[in-house]
Amino acid sequence: MERIIMAHGSGGRLSHQLVQEIFQKHLSNSYLNQMNDATWLPGSEKIAITTDSFVVSPLFFRGGDIGKLAVCGTINDLAVSGAQPRYLTLAVILEEGLLLADLEKIVQSIAATSQMAGVPIVCGDTKVVERGSADKIFINTTGIGALKECAVGPQYIRPGDYVLISGTIGDHGVAILADREGLEFETPVTSDCAPLNHLIDEFYMPGIHCMRDPTRGGVGTTLNELAKQGRVSIILEEEKLPLHPSVAGACGMLGLEPLYLANEGKVLVIVAPEAVDEVLTRMRNHPLGQEAAIIGRVEAADPGLVLLKTPLGGKRIVGMLEGEHLPRIC
Amino acid sequence: MERIIMAHGSGGRLSHQLVQEIFQKHLSNSYLNQMNDATWLPGSEKIAITTDSFVVSPLFFRGGDIGKLAVCGTINDLAVSGAQPRYLTLAVILEEGLLLADLEKIVQSIAATSQMAGVPIVCGDTKVVERGSADKIFINTTGIGALKECAVGPQYIRPGDYVLISGTIGDHGVAILADREGLEFETPVTSDCAPLNHLIDEFYMPGIHCMRDPTRGGVGTTLNELAKQGRVSIILEEEKLPLHPSVAGACGMLGLEPLYLANEGKVLVIVAPEAVDEVLTRMRNHPLGQEAAIIGRVEAADPGLVLLKTPLGGKRIVGMLEGEHLPRIC
Repeated sequence: MERIIMAHGSGGRLSHQLVQEIFQKHLSNSYLNQMNDATWLPGSEKIAITTDSFVVSPLFFRGGDIGKLAVCGTINDLAVSGAQPRYLTLAVILEEGLLLADLEKIVQSIAATSQMAGVPIVCGDTKVVERGSADKIFINTTGIGALKECAVGPQYIRPGDYVLISGTIGDHGVAILADREGLEFETPVTSDCAPLNHLIDEFYMPGIHCMRDPTRGGVGTTLNELAKQGRVSIILEEEKLPLHPSVAGACGMLGLEPLYLANEGKVLVIVAPEAVDEVLTRMRNHPLGQEAAIIGRVEAADPGLVLLKTPLGGKRIVGMLEGEHLPRIC
Repeated sequence: MERIIMAHGSGGRLSHQLVQEIFQKHLSNSYLNQMNDATWLPGSEKIAITTDSFVVSPLFFRGGDIGKLAVCGTINDLAVSGAQPRYLTLAVILEEGLLLADLEKIVQSIAATSQMAGVPIVCGDTKVVERGSADKIFINTTGIGALKECAVGPQYIRPGDYVLISGTIGDHGVAILADREGLEFETPVTSDCAPLNHLIDEFYMPGIHCMRDPTRGGVGTTLNELAKQGRVSIILEEEKLPLHPSVAGACGMLGLEPLYLANEGKVLVIVAPEAVDEVLTRMRNHPLGQEAAIIGRVEAADPGLVLLKTPLGGKRIVGMLEGEHLPRIC
């Protein structure tokens, strides 16, 4: 392969390969090798940093827009790393011809989301490129957070731990697809796009071993990363996966696997048996966690694998996302 | 005006208006209101943060490439703010079809520049968009730095201060233009793209009141910002401006004003009279400051204005850059 193809942006196997074979190869250091959603930096006050660009199409979708997404995505990467999100930077690349009214709507949405989450935008940058050299607007947000009391990460995952998700899966992916393709559902699907820092504050406690937000590549790809990094297997129960009926319908109709659909307001939590009930109760008490569920367990056998137990008792391997699935989802 | 036009990206008057009327209007807070190259954050260890996207065309030019530019640009924004650059983040947007060999060359250049400057890349992000939705590659770098011993900023500028520049002006702008238009000069112009943190370490001392790197919009626009923010006027002497002969030639031939051409490895320093000689000597002792020069002085009259004294004794006002000048210069 000698050129970038869309699948390099899927969040799946080719994305991982690109990062390994070009970026890690030349840039590898102890920070990048942490391979987490956010990187911890040394210093008297331990801080976490993360960066993310947003290229979603369409810019406005049911439940959000690229501005809301850009604020939530970076806040969530910090929050799932066990950091309290503190500051965001905002850099936009604008295409010549973008409507100023659209830009203003997006900036208003950024302001509202940043205020709701309590994380201010502290610096910014604006670039403009000729018509045809970008797709309306691309946004980068970089976030800084401060360490909370207990550390989390794939290295703390233990056999016997439970796997929780804070609500229904695949909503963002299907909402984008519906807006893009003009699909209509009886009950419309709304993107779950939301800042998770307050929800996580609510249930964060000792016994939580790892958290991740299953965005690009979905729950399936994210759990594959955790199984590999934590050297464990993860057994999911298909019937426990919380699924909005319209998402289930869309997946059946279009042949999509909900485990690979993007989420923008959900957190996966790996938690020790003694804490699982309290974490689940606290999650469900928060508006963003009402449909939280235990969806699986961690085992020692077959390290690196994610397995799905079907209602009939069968088991199948859930691999990393292959190919491109849905592009420009975030 | 209801749409984004190229001049919104010039770094000149329309860029400032866009920032004021859309971004500041909705996002204004005490951090953004610092209006500096980097923002200082509170905390036990005082840190500075800055973000910048790079959209230069062509990707490879004499003296550098988009990767080197992305590392230098953000390091320089920190260094001129009086911070010691510590960490960089790296987020790339790739266009489907980009040659992997080109990507690897860019990443190698990022690695080499980051190593030379002693500032590691600590986290990253990769997105891919369809062919025609971006121009090959866009790069965002965000940087974090730690406060050095003395504070600098436009509020410290005093009448009587001297204005220094660390070397020739307009080299980057002309190098890009030459590569883009296939112009040939007797002595080729090379971009000055370089990380300035080590140069600044060399001459940084009490008596330095303000530093800026005159990138997009050039020396003219940058000094206009300082004159307005510092409520002073700045009188430049045209014959003191260090100018590469080929840059002077290109400007004459093409009707370009060197004061508005981008620089990517130069620093403007506003310094008290008692320190000016030592700062200039130290600058000239560093390989990146050999052609440093005193180019003007600060006065109390006409606050907000930048004036250019011509060799014949005339004075003309140097305004902010109007219109788009050269697009996609950084």
